[in-house]
Amino acid sequence: MKTKILLTGFEPFGGEPINPSWELAQALATSHWSEEYFTAAVHAVQLPCVFGRSLQMLDLALAQFKPDMVLAIGQAAGRSELSLERVAINVDDARIPDNAGQSPVDEPILTAGPAAYFTTLPIKAMAAAVQAEGIPAGISQTAGTYVCNHVFYGLQHRCVASGVRSGFMHIPLLPEQAVRLPGKPSMPLALMVQGTRAALRAALAHTHDIKAVGGAED
Amino acid sequence: MKTKILLTGFEPFGGEPINPSWELAQALATSHWSEEYFTAAVHAVQLPCVFGRSLQMLDLALAQFKPDMVLAIGQAAGRSELSLERVAINVDDARIPDNAGQSPVDEPILTAGPAAYFTTLPIKAMAAAVQAEGIPAGISQTAGTYVCNHVFYGLQHRCVASGVRSGFMHIPLLPEQAVRLPGKPSMPLALMVQGTRAALRAALAHTHDIKAVGGAED
Amino acid sequence: MKTKILLTGFEPFGGEPINPSWELAQALATSHWSEEYFTAAVHAVQLPCVFGRSLQMLDLALAQFKPDMVLAIGQAAGRSELSLERVAINVDDARIPDNAGQSPVDEPILTAGPAAYFTTLPIKAMAAAVQAEGIPAGISQTAGTYVCNHVFYGLQHRCVASGVRSGFMHIPLLPEQAVRLPGKPSMPLALMVQGTRAALRAALAHTHDIKAVGGAED
Amino acid sequence: MKTKILLTGFEPFGGEPINPSWELAQALATSHWSEEYFTAAVHAVQLPCVFGRSLQMLDLALAQFKPDMVLAIGQAAGRSELSLERVAINVDDARIPDNAGQSPVDEPILTAGPAAYFTTLPIKAMAAAVQAEGIPAGISQTAGTYVCNHVFYGLQHRCVASGVRSGFMHIPLLPEQAVRLPGKPSMPLALMVQGTRAALRAALAHTHDIKAVGGAED
Repeated sequence: MKTKILLTGFEPFGGEPINPSWELAQALATSHWSEEYFTAAVHAVQLPCVFGRSLQMLDLALAQFKPDMVLAIGQAAGRSELSLERVAINVDDARIPDNAGQSPVDEPILTAGPAAYFTTLPIKAMAAAVQAEGIPAGISQTAGTYVCNHVFYGLQHRCVASGVRSGFMHIPLLPEQAVRLPGKPSMPLALMVQGTRAALRAALAHTHDIKAVGGAED
Repeated sequence: MKTKILLTGFEPFGGEPINPSWELAQALATSHWSEEYFTAAVHAVQLPCVFGRSLQMLDLALAQFKPDMVLAIGQAAGRSELSLERVAINVDDARIPDNAGQSPVDEPILTAGPAAYFTTLPIKAMAAAVQAEGIPAGISQTAGTYVCNHVFYGLQHRCVASGVRSGFMHIPLLPEQAVRLPGKPSMPLALMVQGTRAALRAALAHTHDIKAVGGAED
Repeated sequence: MKTKILLTGFEPFGGEPINPSWELAQALATSHWSEEYFTAAVHAVQLPCVFGRSLQMLDLALAQFKPDMVLAIGQAAGRSELSLERVAINVDDARIPDNAGQSPVDEPILTAGPAAYFTTLPIKAMAAAVQAEGIPAGISQTAGTYVCNHVFYGLQHRCVASGVRSGFMHIPLLPEQAVRLPGKPSMPLALMVQGTRAALRAALAHTHDIKAVGGAED
Repeated sequence: MKTKILLTGFEPFGGEPINPSWELAQALATSHWSEEYFTAAVHAVQLPCVFGRSLQMLDLALAQFKPDMVLAIGQAAGRSELSLERVAINVDDARIPDNAGQSPVDEPILTAGPAAYFTTLPIKAMAAAVQAEGIPAGISQTAGTYVCNHVFYGLQHRCVASGVRSGFMHIPLLPEQAVRLPGKPSMPLALMVQGTRAALRAALAHTHDIKAVGGAED
């Protein structure tokens, strides 16, 4: 029986017409790549860039697909690599309003929830697998305090009980977005697809993560 | 009776001859500024840049001074402002060895400890107070995974039980360090002293933090 | 009769095993793209990353191919876009040795030569054409003081007399290089090829440059 | 007889309420520091951030003070050090309008003027003297294409004939400006004053520049 992988991407936000995270999730789900390489079925769902509602949509998707593994994906303008997130923290602090106009400041995502959840994906093995394809990848120590972190925290809270492995990956802008944002790094969709495939294969292959440096001094 | 504030700074690391965090902690403790402004006594202690031993030294200092408030301070080459840390995470992941040659990778600081501790200092009020002096300040969502985060996590673990308010602040390089590290921002010690005084006064004045934006999208 | 375009790329330097500028020049010259789009013949030549010798090689190539247009290309680690250079200055100042071990400091490229030469390519039209393909491009106000600027200055000096239009373009690292240089932006070769084709077509189409902003405050 | 040094600073632009370049020029001219250290008289004049008019004001100042040396100073948001400019280029290309609403694009500053002028100040010696004070300093290969470069080019054109040594220095934001521009480096005025004094003393002491690396690969 096939492993079921759920990918989530976001709708556009912050004035951008597209969101590479949804382009990527769709591209991975609609292609038949999974069949060729391993016995996984990949589903994609788009989440609104809205505190609260994004997690309601995630609940629906989890109930519908009953995935064995979940990778939530989000756009990170300014990053140059596939960026595997280490930890989600229990706080919403919005510098810009979400797509429903909400700007929570220092509010817990889950009252009485733990301060943070670590990823349960083997992110060091995933980053190494992406790099082995010649594609830049790395570990990130913060997913921010906006809707990306909100979904990441909510996802981990839901999955930790059920034993589903889950995590979050930030990705660069697409080149066509960077045209309008001079100086921002970018990565074409095809490279993101190739890299994420390698990351997912590594996630399936590694029950426990490898020991590889991915830290930061500050 | 005076409020007792403990400041910690680090010994130099990463090839640098000095560490601005210890210069700053010393300057604040040895001056008589506190008397003029509020009834606090400020003590400073230097911590080794060593996983484990730094927390043993912290234990000694906490036992000796019995502070009402603790601000641990560390150097962050590349940051341009007084940077109030929001959260400490339960992991050591050393990109470079510590001063005792240790390079832990993905090891918990406290086995079975919580994934993270939030600061218990009013960091938004503190940042606003620094800015009101015309000195750059901000909120940071990650203290890294090196000895700074190690001390921050250990500090919060020790203080959360006792009700002592505590937190961590990263600071820029000193100008004389930036001379040897072209392109890195810096801040003179006198400005750091002035800004940290304002931050500490705000911490004493605010039992609860103010609502002010300090988040990040990613 | 076909327009003859000479492209130059560099051999690797600075410890890198490849140089994207030579990969790009080769890819453009060996493909049959030019025939399909316009009547140009594209030749590529590799220059050594060596002060002096690079210009001797350029002289040979100019004598052999007798091009109508020349675009010299070089690697710029840290840039995220196809970067059209505006001006070459008459100075060598090497922070790192060239591939022959030379480190000239503040020496003129051409004694009694003019302080600078502007590009004679329509760089604003070229950048706009690249961007119209959804590929990041921009104008740069400095080509540095290393071998890239050396070749650019020498090229302009040689071409200004003969009426051959010429200029210089810096390009990002390839993704496989950025894997080893965390945090550096990159661009895949295929995107560079597509963008440079658009730039060259624009250069052929515009005898005079368009008016489009491409400046910098500092 | 005293050496006469003219310093120029700019009025604020780009929405900023102050311009550190004028604060610095004033501070240096109004203090009596010069008498103590060497026999120089320092005058300061404010230039409008306006293409054309800035050079008319410069002409008046040159005629009035008849300086032996001129250092024009300008603000560079984003730079972290005292930044000695190497070269001025003969082009105006305004990304944002000047204070009179002008936005020239690719227009020569001086029709039929040379493409560029090099500084005639010993910028390597000046940078070294600033660094010896423990203050970050460096060499820059571009002064941009805005009013700073406009004044620098105009200054060199005027001084090259008369034998007056002249040049341009970009400086960071002041800390109080960086409070409103998160992430931008800054330097307090007192440090800028100390560093610029050291730079000017070095300029007076060195008729010819020292050999010291200050180049860039790109």
